[in-house]
Amino acid sequence: MTDAYSDLMAFQRETEALGQVAGRLGWDQETVMPRGATQQRSEEMAAMESVLHARRSDPRVGDWLAEIDDTALGEVERAQMRHIRRSFDRTSRMPAKLASELARVMSVAQGVWAEARAKDDFQAFAPTLKEVLALKREEGAALSDGGDVYNALLDDYEPGATAESLDAMFGALRPRLVALREKVLGAEAPAGLSGSFDEGAQMRLARHIAKTFGYDMSRGRVDKAVHPFSSGSGTDVRITTRTAEDDPFNCLYSTIHEVGHASYEQNVDPAYLLTPLGQGVSMGVHESQSRIYENQLGRSEAFTHWLFGQMGEAFGDIGITSPDGFYRAVNNVRNGYIRTEADEVQYNLHVLLRYDLERALIARDLEVDDLEAAWNERFEADFGYKVDRASNGVLQDVHWSVGLFGYFPTYTLGNVYAGCLNEALRQARPNLDAELAAGDLSGATGWLRDNVQVHGGRYRPREVIGQATGAEPTEEPLLSYLEAKFMQLYGLRAA
Amino acid sequence: MTDAYSDLMAFQRETEALGQVAGRLGWDQETVMPRGATQQRSEEMAAMESVLHARRSDPRVGDWLAEIDDTALGEVERAQMRHIRRSFDRTSRMPAKLASELARVMSVAQGVWAEARAKDDFQAFAPTLKEVLALKREEGAALSDGGDVYNALLDDYEPGATAESLDAMFGALRPRLVALREKVLGAEAPAGLSGSFDEGAQMRLARHIAKTFGYDMSRGRVDKAVHPFSSGSGTDVRITTRTAEDDPFNCLYSTIHEVGHASYEQNVDPAYLLTPLGQGVSMGVHESQSRIYENQLGRSEAFTHWLFGQMGEAFGDIGITSPDGFYRAVNNVRNGYIRTEADEVQYNLHVLLRYDLERALIARDLEVDDLEAAWNERFEADFGYKVDRASNGVLQDVHWSVGLFGYFPTYTLGNVYAGCLNEALRQARPNLDAELAAGDLSGATGWLRDNVQVHGGRYRPREVIGQATGAEPTEEPLLSYLEAKFMQLYGLRAA
Repeated sequence: MTDAYSDLMAFQRETEALGQVAGRLGWDQETVMPRGATQQRSEEMAAMESVLHARRSDPRVGDWLAEIDDTALGEVERAQMRHIRRSFDRTSRMPAKLASELARVMSVAQGVWAEARAKDDFQAFAPTLKEVLALKREEGAALSDGGDVYNALLDDYEPGATAESLDAMFGALRPRLVALREKVLGAEAPAGLSGSFDEGAQMRLARHIAKTFGYDMSRGRVDKAVHPFSSGSGTDVRITTRTAEDDPFNCLYSTIHEVGHASYEQNVDPAYLLTPLGQGVSMGVHESQSRIYENQLGRSEAFTHWLFGQMGEAFGDIGITSPDGFYRAVNNVRNGYIRTEADEVQYNLHVLLRYDLERALIARDLEVDDLEAAWNERFEADFGYKVDRASNGVLQDVHWSVGLFGYFPTYTLGNVYAGCLNEALRQARPNLDAELAAGDLSGATGWLRDNVQVHGGRYRPREVIGQATGAEPTEEPLLSYLEAKFMQLYGLRAA
Repeated sequence: MTDAYSDLMAFQRETEALGQVAGRLGWDQETVMPRGATQQRSEEMAAMESVLHARRSDPRVGDWLAEIDDTALGEVERAQMRHIRRSFDRTSRMPAKLASELARVMSVAQGVWAEARAKDDFQAFAPTLKEVLALKREEGAALSDGGDVYNALLDDYEPGATAESLDAMFGALRPRLVALREKVLGAEAPAGLSGSFDEGAQMRLARHIAKTFGYDMSRGRVDKAVHPFSSGSGTDVRITTRTAEDDPFNCLYSTIHEVGHASYEQNVDPAYLLTPLGQGVSMGVHESQSRIYENQLGRSEAFTHWLFGQMGEAFGDIGITSPDGFYRAVNNVRNGYIRTEADEVQYNLHVLLRYDLERALIARDLEVDDLEAAWNERFEADFGYKVDRASNGVLQDVHWSVGLFGYFPTYTLGNVYAGCLNEALRQARPNLDAELAAGDLSGATGWLRDNVQVHGGRYRPREVIGQATGAEPTEEPLLSYLEAKFMQLYGLRAA
């Protein structure tokens, strides 16, 4: 352990602590902040960001990094260095003028997007999106250092991933998902829930389910917010959910999804607290946890049978009288424009659409003026019907307006990883269904904790999945799982 | 407006924003933080403090200050400079070694005090208190630059105040308060409330009363915490209160007290947001607002008559059937050891005791080994009975364990200022009692807003009171008010 390493890690620890504070401010804003505080809060957040940016680009970090010989360090320390070097390199490559231009454009772009969406008018957003896109292309070029521009952006969310590797995976997913979707939507739709679902009872059941999935309430809390999210690392990881009187699934499955994210953060080795290893390693691996909790576990036949009993206790008559009918209602597949409301079968088709379009935008194969038409054409090709308005199409997601190019594919990558993990989990625990049917999630979440979550940032994203499953991740387990589940569920036979 | 002034104010604005963030972390810790996050939070707070300290002592601030000619600035800008120069001078005078020693001792002293208090064992705290005291004497000497050591510490909480000026005021208060206390406790005690008071109903009534006193819920919120407090400035000023099933007064009057503090922060001129002028000017003036809201307004005969009706609506039978009986119950004077539970008559006697002892400690006229005996002797002299144990005596307050020497007198100074303001307010609004009896606080709180609160840090503490009342502040209005109120209330005649 060199002096430079100790000094760097002490400095980094304070930076991580400040990052947690900034995150907590975000939580506060979405849950408890008085509505009149918006303007003041934006100044407070900007001040925190400015402090964090100054520390991330502090010249002392460069000096320490130059002095440290990674080969003289142990494996964990080398992993810490991998993260710190990567972050410092990215920060150093970013020209100051570009960073401030981005900050300037971002400070208004989301508002412009929201207004355009409210008016269903893509043209009102297009000039702003052009500015954002130009700056993100520039950023990608600066970060890529001569390499692929899109990969440089993607790397921010999924270190080590490349568009080439994703193309192979996603190319295999798309046709089989389109085919599965067509078959399922051709079959008879299941009956839905009916009745009114007390929102207090929804929150009580959500908290109960969160604990059932292993969420540690002594290091977290569940609140309501407009959008469900998970926030924080280590010993303070909070989640939010939302309620709608007529739709308890929104509350319950948002909760399970966020518990997946939060459990990942809560279960990282405590030795890594407030270090670069002390949090989930990538967006893709993060999403694998939220999705396996939500879908492969939470929407499984066995678990929904247990949940059916809980629903009756919480709400009385829910309009469905058999566990099997309830399983079918939970896994209802139906047409819809909106990604965030999509079921397991269709969700990734929404993502792949965005991925292909944003790659083309960054590569200059597509320009903003042609984006809406390209979106609508692709949507009809995959879903079989036309987009009716921009807020149901190209304007539905906030991501591009806040510069998140390269983020979308991590959603599907997470689902692919979840498929791999589910296969390995079921091999490791042959009696999993009996456990789930009894509402006992400890075997499943314990396996994920020990094989994925505990490692935090220690291994690279693909490594951690590869080690947990004993194989290189591919899309095949996800596809097999989806085809088997939904063909069975909808009474269909393989061709 | 020089460039140096603009640069300094931009830098200062970011510092103020970061200070607000640190304050919000404190709120979070006392209200919503998961209990398992304590250790992590202390690191987060320490990181924020370290950032704030670095900014306050940043050499650029010294350069800007050297460059700026205050006489070329307008009056408001000069007031800004007064605060920034004062803060920078204090920070510069503090030796780095002493600051880190203080931080080291403080990080454990409060824990030692809490343990000693739980065991009623002053000797267990004495060695730590000696360390704290030695460092605070050293700090006072460094800050005073050859002047009075206690004044240098006092100046941190009440800029411009001196022990000499307080001695005159407090010397006049003590004998008349002792005499009033004796008379009142010799008279028949009023009947108290009886019954059980639903805690949810207490919180609902507390929020209603908070709004009645002008607290703006769109820029604040009311939560429960172990200790009531107010937190934040500008557009995000939150308060907490507490509830006890058998004692609604604790909740209601804590709320009114904190609303006084919070209203001061909410009502500062919005032009001063996130500048040194954008908050209450001193602890004494702050306490004047909380105390006039709580006592001169909240415990007045007229207001308690209105509150009596609210109590009936909120709780049904409260064991008291007349408005006058309720007024007497609110203002019950009885023996007790604890400062924070003391009534208007006795409260300042508790404070004066601490003030005299801490002055003697700092001046080396008293040593820690003799402190408990000195406390007990003084208590018996003023209150007429013996302290039964250390947790009811010398160990009851946290202040000294966290280095707050020079803070206690601001409580009584605040009460003195509240007395002055009350006199001026009643002259300005001759029909005030009719308004209060109708639950209309807008005239009173509007007058305080326009004459005190709006100025924030623009004027010096004594100046703002002097301008609001048209006279130099003295103890006489407070004494006359207390004597008149309690002699009448207890059916006593002047000698």
